[in-house]
Amino acid sequence: MTDDPIPESHRDILDAKGFAHVATLTEKQVLQNSPTWYLWDDERKQLLISLTTGRQRYRNLRVNPRVAACIADPENPYRYVEIRGPVDAIVTDEGNELINALAKKYVGKDEYTRHKPGDVRVVVRIVPERVLCFG
Amino acid sequence: MTDDPIPESHRDILDAKGFAHVATLTEKQVLQNSPTWYLWDDERKQLLISLTTGRQRYRNLRVNPRVAACIADPENPYRYVEIRGPVDAIVTDEGNELINALAKKYVGKDEYTRHKPGDVRVVVRIVPERVLCFG
Repeated sequence: MTDDPIPESHRDILDAKGFAHVATLTEKQVLQNSPTWYLWDDERKQLLISLTTGRQRYRNLRVNPRVAACIADPENPYRYVEIRGPVDAIVTDEGNELINALAKKYVGKDEYTRHKPGDVRVVVRIVPERVLCFG
Repeated sequence: MTDDPIPESHRDILDAKGFAHVATLTEKQVLQNSPTWYLWDDERKQLLISLTTGRQRYRNLRVNPRVAACIADPENPYRYVEIRGPVDAIVTDEGNELINALAKKYVGKDEYTRHKPGDVRVVVRIVPERVLCFG
């Protein structure tokens, strides 16, 4: 366990079922922004998202491994956390562990069932280098 | 009226009361991302947001006048529009016209009442150069 980078006042948002809006940059420095399932890894204090390697976002993070993720309280959109930081690692999602955990969290299923042929799932680990809390 | 850059299938999202998650870049190319009130200007086909000139985001847009704005259907977070594009203009919000219209849309008041001393309100006009629809 490392020190908690997320203030106690907003800690609950990380366990809620809101989406993380994750902004990245393409190779050409074009901004992208999209809603994303996420999990908070409380052991390592990192934000985890799942991607397939076919996604533009995966290519973006290979070149520009930084994000700004905005996560709002699903009950109150004026209360939110913005997490900015580098990607610590992008690793294969062994046994689909992360995507299955996300399916459990968001749709209540033990397994993620929407894989497409050829999909390679990876885990993106984001370090909350800077955390801003609002509301 | 110019051609509509927003497909009919997702046009309703622009009039809904969801938030635009607006990503920008600081002078040092650091990503920022935050939920924002918005209005769709159907005459000019531009996305409008309101800022005070004291905000980091205002300084960002002065240096890097581009955004990626993600707007989800408030009833269905899997259905969303991503609007990427340059800022066409940043102009004074004469008579607080935009911020009052936003207060009307979001909180049902004729006037925005949360001004702070010294606030200068501006209108940011975003051109939807690229529009991606999901869900």
